[in-house]
Amino acid sequence: MPSGPGLDYRRRKDVPVSDKKPKTAITPTRQEDYPEWYQQVIKAADMAEMSSVRGCMVIKPWGYGIWEKIQRGMDDLIKATGHENAYFPLFIPLSFMELEAGHVEGFAKECAVVTHHRLVEKEGRLIPTGELEEPLIVRPTSETIIGRSFARWIQSYRDLPLLINQWANVVRWEMRPRIFLRTTEFLWQEGHTAHSTEKEAREETLMILHDVYCKFAEEFLALPVLVGEKTEAERFPGAVATYCIEAMMQDHKALQAGTSHYLGQNFSRAFEIQFSNAEGELELAYTTSWGVSSRLIGAVIMVHADDDGLRLPPMIAPKQVVIIPMLNKAGTEEQVLAYANAVAEDIRKMTWADQPVSVLIDDRDMRPVDKKWQWIKRGAPIRLEIGPRDMESNSVFMGRRDRSVKAAESVGRDQIAGMVVSALGEIQQNLYDQAKALRDENTHTGITDFESLKTFFTPQNIEKPEIHGGFVNAKYCGNPECEDNAARLKVTIRLLPFDQSGTEGKCVICGSPAKIDAVWAKSY
Amino acid sequence: MPSGPGLDYRRRKDVPVSDKKPKTAITPTRQEDYPEWYQQVIKAADMAEMSSVRGCMVIKPWGYGIWEKIQRGMDDLIKATGHENAYFPLFIPLSFMELEAGHVEGFAKECAVVTHHRLVEKEGRLIPTGELEEPLIVRPTSETIIGRSFARWIQSYRDLPLLINQWANVVRWEMRPRIFLRTTEFLWQEGHTAHSTEKEAREETLMILHDVYCKFAEEFLALPVLVGEKTEAERFPGAVATYCIEAMMQDHKALQAGTSHYLGQNFSRAFEIQFSNAEGELELAYTTSWGVSSRLIGAVIMVHADDDGLRLPPMIAPKQVVIIPMLNKAGTEEQVLAYANAVAEDIRKMTWADQPVSVLIDDRDMRPVDKKWQWIKRGAPIRLEIGPRDMESNSVFMGRRDRSVKAAESVGRDQIAGMVVSALGEIQQNLYDQAKALRDENTHTGITDFESLKTFFTPQNIEKPEIHGGFVNAKYCGNPECEDNAARLKVTIRLLPFDQSGTEGKCVICGSPAKIDAVWAKSY
Repeated sequence: MPSGPGLDYRRRKDVPVSDKKPKTAITPTRQEDYPEWYQQVIKAADMAEMSSVRGCMVIKPWGYGIWEKIQRGMDDLIKATGHENAYFPLFIPLSFMELEAGHVEGFAKECAVVTHHRLVEKEGRLIPTGELEEPLIVRPTSETIIGRSFARWIQSYRDLPLLINQWANVVRWEMRPRIFLRTTEFLWQEGHTAHSTEKEAREETLMILHDVYCKFAEEFLALPVLVGEKTEAERFPGAVATYCIEAMMQDHKALQAGTSHYLGQNFSRAFEIQFSNAEGELELAYTTSWGVSSRLIGAVIMVHADDDGLRLPPMIAPKQVVIIPMLNKAGTEEQVLAYANAVAEDIRKMTWADQPVSVLIDDRDMRPVDKKWQWIKRGAPIRLEIGPRDMESNSVFMGRRDRSVKAAESVGRDQIAGMVVSALGEIQQNLYDQAKALRDENTHTGITDFESLKTFFTPQNIEKPEIHGGFVNAKYCGNPECEDNAARLKVTIRLLPFDQSGTEGKCVICGSPAKIDAVWAKSY
Repeated sequence: MPSGPGLDYRRRKDVPVSDKKPKTAITPTRQEDYPEWYQQVIKAADMAEMSSVRGCMVIKPWGYGIWEKIQRGMDDLIKATGHENAYFPLFIPLSFMELEAGHVEGFAKECAVVTHHRLVEKEGRLIPTGELEEPLIVRPTSETIIGRSFARWIQSYRDLPLLINQWANVVRWEMRPRIFLRTTEFLWQEGHTAHSTEKEAREETLMILHDVYCKFAEEFLALPVLVGEKTEAERFPGAVATYCIEAMMQDHKALQAGTSHYLGQNFSRAFEIQFSNAEGELELAYTTSWGVSSRLIGAVIMVHADDDGLRLPPMIAPKQVVIIPMLNKAGTEEQVLAYANAVAEDIRKMTWADQPVSVLIDDRDMRPVDKKWQWIKRGAPIRLEIGPRDMESNSVFMGRRDRSVKAAESVGRDQIAGMVVSALGEIQQNLYDQAKALRDENTHTGITDFESLKTFFTPQNIEKPEIHGGFVNAKYCGNPECEDNAARLKVTIRLLPFDQSGTEGKCVICGSPAKIDAVWAKSY
């Protein structure tokens, strides 16, 4: 990882000169205060901010640009696997939420409730009026409202499978919001499908996990993920089985990056999603649901950012290449800008990952060094600095965000477009490899009893307690009480890997004989 | 316009054979019952339906596919004119709505109000609890919450112009909902910009109207539109000036298809959007806002659909070409499907309007004639029917949605890809030309007094009152009372055209001397 910026950074006004520590663009560093570092990366990258509405964020253009790239890439995968987009109401009648018992319990606590549909003005103030006969819930997820639609749409086995996806905003009231990771309102996609057989529905659930979510995390987000099943305690309210992808953050905690649920006939029973089979008999459909959210942006930050700010995998960078023309020498501005434009045009003609390479020329009226650091903090994969001297020597000064700022180098004008394309591929791969190495280093298999587990997950260094622990591969006996006991250490089973060894051992919590392989970790 | 389907339609089971009228795929026809025809087109095209939540619709895949095309095309134009997307909270604190006096009045009446943030279970029922200190409004539009963000983001003239767009869902409680046209929840984009001078903000407002909305309506939706300014009575709450595009529907009513508002300093005063100018003095910014919504889909239906269902301009068709392989002759299925696939591949290699032509092969297990009528009703621009005989004669049977079903014709295999591309352009143009002709035929300039206006806007034929009237170009004296008097005829001034003649005349309502040219019409 880059060790820190070069000398020019010290000229920036907002860094106290008296500070003797090695300079970084983000204060504090990950080691100093991981949670605060996360907030500062988001601020420095100008991605998002908390709004005046408690728990709700404003996603600023650079952050939303990342979401647009995520949305486009994910949408292509969802459509390529045969799903169509649709849109369902924001509001859910209260009574719908009462219909599926497990679902009620899981979601009842944290909903925004609409009770009135009108305001009247009274002495300059607005007073709610027009009380609704039945309160409406702002969707925390749409199984219930979509279930009601599916019941109308599905008559015969010929209407199945029904493969629907929705891009939407959802609301889950958060008492301790954290930007991108846990906000009252967030953006997501939710897939909802109905099938005529259990087998087909189960296959759909796993296909989405592997061919859409895992593939997307690894190939677009450069996020190595574990895949497996959740235990009953961590299951989606109303599901028969919940599968997930889990990634390790730089503080060694786990973050659930996507879930896929096999719902069996629970929702089709509650919402009467029935079809007549080939024999003309009525059957309940088998349904699934699956989702990923704007929380993925939080994962990208926590996995790839460093002490100089964000580092974006090129696949999801709103701009892959930023050109900074040095317009500070009188008389050369026009020529430099023309040269920069010609370089940009050359690069835009190139394709990488089947898309034209995206280039921004940053010609704002600002000091070039300030621009450069802004783009480092925003995580632009490649920076090209072009000044009068580069122009004269027919070259371009190129910096890569996966390398130290000092490693920037001069590249010949003729080579630059080709260099950019190969660098994009290398950066994408390097970010993945670094994240994978971090996970591998912090995944442990030798922890087999409760005391060791407790020691492992207890912060050793009181001064910087945020980064500790990791993933522990250890046995689980299957008794939910053991999960409760782990929870006292703030540790949960993140997943039961699909790839089970089948070996006998002892439950890491209670010591009883146990066969199940589980991944234990602290998590977001 | 197509006169009606061919013989094969009469074999369909759902059409009573005893009915002697010329058959149409949609019952009733436009002439018989225009409002009901509109609902039936939407149903037959499987675009959307009203949901269990009063006033809220479910947008089904074919309808949402149209919205996706609209969104993509519009987004490209918005970005090409220098705007960036961002996302702001769904909820607006009640107090924000109270800050801009005109805005309060305009929006206070029809809002969804969130008053609680929790539900508790009590004997299987859910009870709202956790009352909020300050109620939250579900955004009816985002001027207030975005204004508050702009105030934080803007410090200096260097931060201007700030050019932001948001794609979002909004809620305005509707007592008389009408699918796509007036629903409690709808989808839209809302642009919000801030500028350092009045001149620049006014230019932005008009640039959006002309270069984005008018261009999009005409080139994508094949919708001829009038452009101009709204009168004070029709202005956006809090705006200094509201501009709009207006289109004529097939019942001769007007539909407002997009608005662009110059907000002056009204919102910057209320939300303290200030900047220090080049001289270091604090000034209030000049702001604009502008939006189009999923209502555009309603306009497309009401302008282009006919008595056989929807007709989609190819620019916004989710699939431009639908291939119906005739898989009803045993032993030929595999060959026919292979031939159809080869034709599809040839067409997919073609580009039209800078995009690859989109092709769907409909190989569902259904009678080909039923499929054919389904795609006619859904408005697919081009249908290709491919059976064993077409394969033998090395040809394809091609039907265009802008022509009668009977006009379908055989095209040689070698010509088909080229034919498709030229047909797409012709269909796009034909739909525009037909809509323009309808508007021209029903635009009147000879109505100069109240009695004539009254007669013109009074249904002549009691049996089919829905289609009557039109656009009346007539003078307006400028007195709002005359607008009130027109409103008694359910007629409003749709806009004051930019292209004012400057001639003297008499106000069509009161007869006073009047200079202003106005377009009067009934409207949605």
